[in-house]
Amino acid sequence: MASARNLMTAADLGRFDVRRFADIVELYLETGIKVNSRGYMGRQFSSVMPVTAVFEMVAAMAPQPASYYEAGQLANVADRLIEEVFGRFIGWAPGSFEMVTTSGASLANMTAALVARNRYLSGSWNGGLAAGRSTRPAIAIGQDAHFSVSRIAGIIGIGQNQVIRLPLNDRRQICPERAAATLDEAATQGLDIFCLIASAGTTAIGANDPLPDLAALAKRRGAWLHVDAAHNGAFLVSDRLRPRLAGLELADSFCLDAHKALFVPALCTLLFYREKGLAETAFPQKDSYVFDPFEDEMTAVQSGVKNFECTKRPAILNLWLAWSLYGPRAFADKLERLVMMTEAAHQYLADQPDFIVPYRPESNILCFVHQPLGVCGNRLSSLQLELRNRVRAAGRYLLSKVDMDGRTMLRMVLMNHRIGLSDIAGMVGEIRRHAREILASNATHGEQNRPFRFEPQE
Amino acid sequence: MASARNLMTAADLGRFDVRRFADIVELYLETGIKVNSRGYMGRQFSSVMPVTAVFEMVAAMAPQPASYYEAGQLANVADRLIEEVFGRFIGWAPGSFEMVTTSGASLANMTAALVARNRYLSGSWNGGLAAGRSTRPAIAIGQDAHFSVSRIAGIIGIGQNQVIRLPLNDRRQICPERAAATLDEAATQGLDIFCLIASAGTTAIGANDPLPDLAALAKRRGAWLHVDAAHNGAFLVSDRLRPRLAGLELADSFCLDAHKALFVPALCTLLFYREKGLAETAFPQKDSYVFDPFEDEMTAVQSGVKNFECTKRPAILNLWLAWSLYGPRAFADKLERLVMMTEAAHQYLADQPDFIVPYRPESNILCFVHQPLGVCGNRLSSLQLELRNRVRAAGRYLLSKVDMDGRTMLRMVLMNHRIGLSDIAGMVGEIRRHAREILASNATHGEQNRPFRFEPQE
Repeated sequence: MASARNLMTAADLGRFDVRRFADIVELYLETGIKVNSRGYMGRQFSSVMPVTAVFEMVAAMAPQPASYYEAGQLANVADRLIEEVFGRFIGWAPGSFEMVTTSGASLANMTAALVARNRYLSGSWNGGLAAGRSTRPAIAIGQDAHFSVSRIAGIIGIGQNQVIRLPLNDRRQICPERAAATLDEAATQGLDIFCLIASAGTTAIGANDPLPDLAALAKRRGAWLHVDAAHNGAFLVSDRLRPRLAGLELADSFCLDAHKALFVPALCTLLFYREKGLAETAFPQKDSYVFDPFEDEMTAVQSGVKNFECTKRPAILNLWLAWSLYGPRAFADKLERLVMMTEAAHQYLADQPDFIVPYRPESNILCFVHQPLGVCGNRLSSLQLELRNRVRAAGRYLLSKVDMDGRTMLRMVLMNHRIGLSDIAGMVGEIRRHAREILASNATHGEQNRPFRFEPQE
Repeated sequence: MASARNLMTAADLGRFDVRRFADIVELYLETGIKVNSRGYMGRQFSSVMPVTAVFEMVAAMAPQPASYYEAGQLANVADRLIEEVFGRFIGWAPGSFEMVTTSGASLANMTAALVARNRYLSGSWNGGLAAGRSTRPAIAIGQDAHFSVSRIAGIIGIGQNQVIRLPLNDRRQICPERAAATLDEAATQGLDIFCLIASAGTTAIGANDPLPDLAALAKRRGAWLHVDAAHNGAFLVSDRLRPRLAGLELADSFCLDAHKALFVPALCTLLFYREKGLAETAFPQKDSYVFDPFEDEMTAVQSGVKNFECTKRPAILNLWLAWSLYGPRAFADKLERLVMMTEAAHQYLADQPDFIVPYRPESNILCFVHQPLGVCGNRLSSLQLELRNRVRAAGRYLLSKVDMDGRTMLRMVLMNHRIGLSDIAGMVGEIRRHAREILASNATHGEQNRPFRFEPQE
């Protein structure tokens, strides 16, 4: 804060000071995550293909709002071309489905839920949800659903009390049999589940829900199936990884973040609808200056009526241009390498006597626990949190942590294809070193039986 | 479409082809709006301060999600510093208010409406809106409100039927006296207006609603006042223009787009709450991996609980760095020039016998009608649309159009500070030329008495 404040000019400057700009860039790079470092294993944020960063500069100097064909033709055309190639990967017939790009999966998930709500709760767009209904509308989601998914009911007027959390199996996927029972139970309590949201790549461990079973379940109950495939949806581009998304083609809608595992600058989310024509039912509304009443070949292409944003960045162009320059192989290669390296890390950690890896990775995310001899229960969870903080403070590695079923675990997400097994081994060594220090310090202070405290960082 | 398709590689390429990249950039620049041209008068999209475009490239190569202090410290710090300077402009006491940055005014407007809904309809976040209420919750907006504002009721479960459109005066501002009567009438029909949304800078003509009167009206009725100041909120930085926003300090919340009249890359919207602590009531929810249960000085700063996005670009840094490098004067100078030039354009057009300028501009937006002798009624509206299309097709100037009260008008938005009166005169000459051609062509085809048709472009 002090450094930043010093860099703000008090009096107005007469000319551009390149030194000050360099100081600002330096401060930015110094104080944020280092996604280009081999120690960066902490988050789903990725460094990008450099050419797309150059294009970002071009697009900032010559901005084109992508919601309007007139203003940004290429972005609207690129939407259609990317839609085509992904349609082939999914296996949907050309012309039968639809894709919209939007700014982030939070927005995509909410948009899909609105389409489901507007379809199943007829009149809710105009009438609202206060109109008397005999049953309470509800949304079913997995227990590990992303927070943007669990928020939706609160936002769109359904209410968080009407969110049914579906139980998971031992791989932390929604368990279809137990889910069916949970839905039955909810129905007896007057809940009408109009939308089921599954995950392909949960945030916590990257798990893929069993989509064919869930699609059948949703269909039997007359509910919409949306899949939040923000993270693992990118598997579509890889022949080797695509089978892990089996059943995605049965979903009514799904989204994937190109700014995660397709390595383009944020925010670039693709939202797919299995049935063409549904996209424009999310926000069924017309305004003259946005939506030309004289529809022609130009206005027919524009996406303004289908996405939430009015000003939308032409973010799809980053994906389209990287695709055009390098071909899909570049994405598939990088993604396959990350998934393979995560499997190797899983094997490596499983071979260590003092590490627990409860879940076999289905993606590039791996959760684990460091368990020195004699530490268990709450003290084990406190130790993981303390380890995460110390590793972060030391600055060489970055990990994240998750709390699941009351246990805290460390979490690595491999987004950098240059990370190798030696980096994993280095991280393990660093964790052990910090753990020894923590345990020694607590022993000295006679705190063996108390939870670990949040210690000041060195 | 054909050009773009040709640029997509069929087989994978072995190496980066700079020629292809150049062709892509060329196609992008050729087919979109030319915001750096002096003929660009069509939209609220702006070219940016070049140094921010360079920073966009840096931020794309080293991305930092701004919702998490750990991942992007400087963006979170910049939020606080920009909050401070704007607080002084607004006149709010330090520490008493709050600012959140988000991706676009559509999102900011919805977020503020959720805070209002969660406050006034207690239990709606958890209970939803289906719970029996004796009155129907409603939102009041101006007749010229932006489409993202008129959408909100449909999205958050209030329903579009519960949107009260407040009448305007002859300057297309909400008329407080008639608004009070409209609200009275709505109340007798069982509508409970919990939120009033005003505009500072309507999209159509840039009008500022009378905020002191509307603040008093909202207060009397116990409703939240939000101001969509996406466009004119930038006036805060200018001593000369700030008085036009009188009463903004009385709003419960308002937003402004830095990517409009503060000339930074999209999307960068500032959302202000008059009362500190309210921002986190928009999405009252906790998830462990996002929101650290052990709050410390680091997590206290992060914005994740307060904005819709999970992955949020560090867009605020563009505003903060331009501010740090050039000082507020750079923004104020450019903005004042644009507003002054719009007033000059108004005067110029008012002096032409064949142009009608119905509204004195309050911003950098000006609507007008070209009326050749003898053209009126529906034919006059059709002519404006045809003029807009021909001017666009000719490629030298870009205008937009709006439909108000059944009349179509041409609309100019001056975003480029290099536009001078000679450009306005050139545009007027071009319009006259196209009008003569259209009228001559229609006369030849004996169509004087029929509406103008959408003609193929030359």
